[in-house]
Amino acid sequence: MAEWLNGQLKQVGVDTQLVDLGRHTMDGEDLPLPPAILGRIGDDKNKKTVLIYGHFDVQPANKSDGWDTEPFQLTIDEKTGRLIGRGSSDDKGPILGWLNVLQYHHENNIPLPVNLRCCFEGMEESGSEGLDELVERESKKGGYFEGVDCVCISDNYWLNTRTPALTYGLRGLSYYKVTISGPARDLHSGVFGRTVHEPMTDLINLLGTLVSPQGDILIKGVDEMVAPPDEEEKKIYAGLDYAISDIEEAAGASIALSSDKVSVLMGRMRSPSLSIHGIEGAFSGAGAKTVIPAKVSGKFSIRLVPPQTPEAVDPLVIDHLHKAFAKLGSKNKLTVENLHGGKPWVADHRHWNFEAAKKATKAVYGREPDLTREGGSIPVTLTFAESLGVNVLLLPMGRGDDGAHSTNEKLDKSNFIEGSKLLGTYLYELADISK
Amino acid sequence: MAEWLNGQLKQVGVDTQLVDLGRHTMDGEDLPLPPAILGRIGDDKNKKTVLIYGHFDVQPANKSDGWDTEPFQLTIDEKTGRLIGRGSSDDKGPILGWLNVLQYHHENNIPLPVNLRCCFEGMEESGSEGLDELVERESKKGGYFEGVDCVCISDNYWLNTRTPALTYGLRGLSYYKVTISGPARDLHSGVFGRTVHEPMTDLINLLGTLVSPQGDILIKGVDEMVAPPDEEEKKIYAGLDYAISDIEEAAGASIALSSDKVSVLMGRMRSPSLSIHGIEGAFSGAGAKTVIPAKVSGKFSIRLVPPQTPEAVDPLVIDHLHKAFAKLGSKNKLTVENLHGGKPWVADHRHWNFEAAKKATKAVYGREPDLTREGGSIPVTLTFAESLGVNVLLLPMGRGDDGAHSTNEKLDKSNFIEGSKLLGTYLYELADISK
Repeated sequence: MAEWLNGQLKQVGVDTQLVDLGRHTMDGEDLPLPPAILGRIGDDKNKKTVLIYGHFDVQPANKSDGWDTEPFQLTIDEKTGRLIGRGSSDDKGPILGWLNVLQYHHENNIPLPVNLRCCFEGMEESGSEGLDELVERESKKGGYFEGVDCVCISDNYWLNTRTPALTYGLRGLSYYKVTISGPARDLHSGVFGRTVHEPMTDLINLLGTLVSPQGDILIKGVDEMVAPPDEEEKKIYAGLDYAISDIEEAAGASIALSSDKVSVLMGRMRSPSLSIHGIEGAFSGAGAKTVIPAKVSGKFSIRLVPPQTPEAVDPLVIDHLHKAFAKLGSKNKLTVENLHGGKPWVADHRHWNFEAAKKATKAVYGREPDLTREGGSIPVTLTFAESLGVNVLLLPMGRGDDGAHSTNEKLDKSNFIEGSKLLGTYLYELADISK
Repeated sequence: MAEWLNGQLKQVGVDTQLVDLGRHTMDGEDLPLPPAILGRIGDDKNKKTVLIYGHFDVQPANKSDGWDTEPFQLTIDEKTGRLIGRGSSDDKGPILGWLNVLQYHHENNIPLPVNLRCCFEGMEESGSEGLDELVERESKKGGYFEGVDCVCISDNYWLNTRTPALTYGLRGLSYYKVTISGPARDLHSGVFGRTVHEPMTDLINLLGTLVSPQGDILIKGVDEMVAPPDEEEKKIYAGLDYAISDIEEAAGASIALSSDKVSVLMGRMRSPSLSIHGIEGAFSGAGAKTVIPAKVSGKFSIRLVPPQTPEAVDPLVIDHLHKAFAKLGSKNKLTVENLHGGKPWVADHRHWNFEAAKKATKAVYGREPDLTREGGSIPVTLTFAESLGVNVLLLPMGRGDDGAHSTNEKLDKSNFIEGSKLLGTYLYELADISK
């Protein structure tokens, strides 16, 4: 894919280079990482310089997973207007959108209205291994990205299936493992039941102190870190083209935490969330086993929003767990680990980079875009924002129901066509707008 | 083993028959069940009739499990005086004890002081498949067990490594599966965190309402079913040769619920206990996965003591879970299942059957036996008690550290020798004692 994309970029006049990102170990095998592609067009001091990002790797897919078509063969369903195949929306479609824009300009000998820098990678679905170092290195003085004024990433989705969107925030993450250990080995619940402190009883009690059934985080200070929205921000959520039925359709059940759209949207976009994922070390199979597990680890994570960071939240979580454990009066042992974490990101959606995208959206789609924040993470966004110190815009091409990591991934033909126009128009609006 | 034991019994004058118990399916294969052995000596109306039970099957064992010797070859360690091998204590040793008694009487042409009925089976470690029906059938008028005055089962262990014991109680069991389902599929915690009711949050909350870290069952009415011990019963526990260090050594950690020996012993022997075994459907592997599981099932069981029965406890558990779930205000769905259950058993330890065993213990060991109740279950005990309507005595041969289902299972030579004497002496005390 790297070779193919590199060839395509060269054909449309991009000056490219493949960057070796080193090696990695996968399933015990030492393998080279797929190279990243850096590219450039133009160096005009009178033009703005925009860096675009995309990834040419995809999630795994097998027809037997439940696909209706061969996942690695593009199928065009003329009836529904869907382009079906793995990567159609995540993220090959958007990369092809950029190629469409560049091809037009190249074939018609029209110079781009901006200086362009590209960064395409092939490890996004595997944690963007090797990319952070590259971005940090090339963002320094004299690096490949010197002079970049703004960044545009097209690698997410509209909130719904109807309304174009610009995305200005992503949640971060802090992942915890809380372990209770006691007996030297698993115990017979007949022989030991009601004679010893059972690790599972302690763990269940601890996990029960973390989050309410209504989603409120019960760890003191975590929810409180986030300032409530002002009236202007509330208006953004109220204005989004979204209904409770959208989330309940996506979840497949009527289980929304609230019937108030603004409250549900804020829960996803601007509030932290705590999810309990499971327990390691306890009986997890089918059937009935009567053992008292000797050592059990609860796994939970907190999605973070500014100003939360793993560094700020960690001590609150650890302190909470130790205090709650002390209250249990158990003789078992507690350990808490942070398995991994990442900071949240929010951009200024009043920045000229966003303003240009809003104008482009209006020109192409004839309507204002939804201004959204995503509940998940795209870690490279933060890397670009922090390394370059410039505004980063997420400009999605696909719809909320594209099924990015799922079976029958698709991109609607109209989203591909209008989305390609949108990327091109965005470059012109970018050139036009005053900094 | 059935053939071998049958031959041994015939050689010492027992009139035996192998009973076909039918067939069963194991690992998809249709196989005959090993036959049970019924045996009899004597039909003297002036003698009491005792039914003895044992099992000739054993737990699986491989040297690679961690055995120091070949598990299926008897190894006599002269230094420690241990007879090491799978089944040495559970339950071939006790059966050989009975054979020793019978052999002596047969070879010396001495009639037994009682009429004897034997019931030996080969499926005890697999749930005594087929035996319940046999016992029930033969307990009826005209059946093989007609006229049986009392039962003696030698298939458990002393409380410790020092003091002979008679056992007069076993706990029952009721096993529950509580399932919370909501979304149609697992959800991304970034996209859905704090927008929907999460099944794991609900389940953890529910499981947290079941039992306190101190072992108290929080389901209203369950602990309350059991009357507190009177002074006489408390004296039994106070008199047992037992220290907190015994249980902490067995558990491998200092995690006893109390430093009071009587309280810990009562927790195991005469109180119900509730253990949470695990969760099905949630993330249970190593590492960090951020999914919101769509459907999760908590598994827990309650060990029961008289007058509790699964039938009496079930409605309390189900009602408790439904009420607790209603309090959560969740839109997810709850289902509760009882996966299986069994009644507890307690015998009258003042009965002449026990008195005979006490006298025998005193004669052989020179001391009073510990009067114990076991925390686990030996379901056939209840079958004998209910089918025959007579007193059942558990008369253990081995010690608490024999490692019945574990590696390096052993029976101490002194327990084998003195235990054989005990079984024989018991028959004479039984003959002597007035009903």
